[in-house]
Amino acid sequence: MSTDNPTTPVPHCHGEVSAEQQAREEELIQRVLASFDGAPDARLKALMQALVRHLHAFLREVRITEQEWQQGIEFLTSAGHITDERRQEFILLSDVLGASMQTVAINNEAYADATEATVFGPFFTQDAPVIDIGGDIAGVAPGEPCWVEGTVSDTDGHPITGAQIEVWEADDDGFYDVQYGDGRTAGRARLFSDDRGHYAFWGLTPTPYPIPADGPVGVMLNAVGRSPLRASHLHFMVSAEGRRTLVTHIFVRGDEHLDSDSVFGVKESLVKDFDSQPARAPTPDGRDIGESTWSRVRFDIVLAPLTT
Amino acid sequence: MSTDNPTTPVPHCHGEVSAEQQAREEELIQRVLASFDGAPDARLKALMQALVRHLHAFLREVRITEQEWQQGIEFLTSAGHITDERRQEFILLSDVLGASMQTVAINNEAYADATEATVFGPFFTQDAPVIDIGGDIAGVAPGEPCWVEGTVSDTDGHPITGAQIEVWEADDDGFYDVQYGDGRTAGRARLFSDDRGHYAFWGLTPTPYPIPADGPVGVMLNAVGRSPLRASHLHFMVSAEGRRTLVTHIFVRGDEHLDSDSVFGVKESLVKDFDSQPARAPTPDGRDIGESTWSRVRFDIVLAPLTT
Repeated sequence: MSTDNPTTPVPHCHGEVSAEQQAREEELIQRVLASFDGAPDARLKALMQALVRHLHAFLREVRITEQEWQQGIEFLTSAGHITDERRQEFILLSDVLGASMQTVAINNEAYADATEATVFGPFFTQDAPVIDIGGDIAGVAPGEPCWVEGTVSDTDGHPITGAQIEVWEADDDGFYDVQYGDGRTAGRARLFSDDRGHYAFWGLTPTPYPIPADGPVGVMLNAVGRSPLRASHLHFMVSAEGRRTLVTHIFVRGDEHLDSDSVFGVKESLVKDFDSQPARAPTPDGRDIGESTWSRVRFDIVLAPLTT
Repeated sequence: MSTDNPTTPVPHCHGEVSAEQQAREEELIQRVLASFDGAPDARLKALMQALVRHLHAFLREVRITEQEWQQGIEFLTSAGHITDERRQEFILLSDVLGASMQTVAINNEAYADATEATVFGPFFTQDAPVIDIGGDIAGVAPGEPCWVEGTVSDTDGHPITGAQIEVWEADDDGFYDVQYGDGRTAGRARLFSDDRGHYAFWGLTPTPYPIPADGPVGVMLNAVGRSPLRASHLHFMVSAEGRRTLVTHIFVRGDEHLDSDSVFGVKESLVKDFDSQPARAPTPDGRDIGESTWSRVRFDIVLAPLTT
């Protein structure tokens, strides 16, 4: 951060702002910045002072009106009030503004050889049930069965044994289990890679669904003509001792929402071929899934080392 | 807003960020900005795109960590959950970051001949009781009596008759009536200027008090070593037909917190002489206030015309 020029000047296109007025606005920023000078934690001080500079630069650039600022306060208040242990509107807000993906981008620069990360989303839960390799995560969640398999390895290509693989996804109706509010666990599980680093499970073929659009974030998306739909995906969080935990999804090649994902989560390396299989096609593990069509996908996972 | 160069480059001091990484981060910003291209309301589009640019510039400049971003989400969640009809943590947050005062500054450029505005604060209530000129606003609020008088006029010096003057202040214990949560109305009232534009009332000599510090904003202020104290003040909102409504305070000359007001609300033109009076000094209206000391202050109010 440059301390020589800590404020962003009002752009030339706001030439109607007098020099005297600009000086008043800049003087206020200096007073606010100075109020953080005594912060004992240097990182917190840097964060708060940068926040102040960028926040004020935003207000000044758009010449915010008092009514607009009040609407902003009301937006945050509504987001706070709809947020509870099952609904996280501030994560949604961060997601639809691309802030979550930017945070992922900033923090994954050092892991270029590893599988790419994407947004965490608001629907992870701790302590999902453990299944064996080849087990089924669906439970009562409706949808087309999907065989998912692959390996977990390090950036040198060595298989990782006992990596914890947490997976979660929406059902065919577009809802995660936690959204039903009835305590069900469905469409999520944990499993562990075997001694060859291999894993496999039955999930559901991902389908597109809207992020929760009945709150202030949905109102905002609607007002700007944006779709709340997410590209079809399946969440992974993969962790192993001595390795950086990977939070990612895989996406379905050919999905029509890959270019308009509402949270900007799609990365080309994460788009996978989900091969559609006709009913009665032999399954990899011999399981009888009746008259249902099914799909299969391979996802090989590479975990980065911990940073030192 | 410049559309030619919509992103803020990462400063040179982050030279450790590779060009490839910077390109990735900028490409994400372009995708997020483009998602708002179809917004039917041009002002909303401009606001959202500017918000995205400044938000991402902040994240990139500080190289936000995933843990820090998570803490930010938790901060906003806590602020939302403590906010109710009597407590507005987002206004407090805006206040302590100087955003409220910057919004006031931006919107009051055109009213240079009028009385200066300052922050609204979270403690205004609609429909305070109406008192006659010379009435007392204190009710059950403890504190030293203070005689407040002045005139309301336009920017040409003509008195304004019938201007509505809404006043509110904290009591000697540092609390506004609404903070007690028992439905009391105290330390607030409305009155109207007379046919010479004159007004007067008995209030309380303002004393310093902390903004509510038992929530996330208080935690933040404490972490950065900032005081929650506000400089002693008395709130005014003054409205009249054909005039711009003025939201302001008056401050007490000599108050030790004038230079460290937690919400940056102090302006020199709003600092007034509160003249201390000994017990038994004759009061302006002949009222007997017993053995109490008291004070008096003059505040002449000039209202700007409505903008066209």
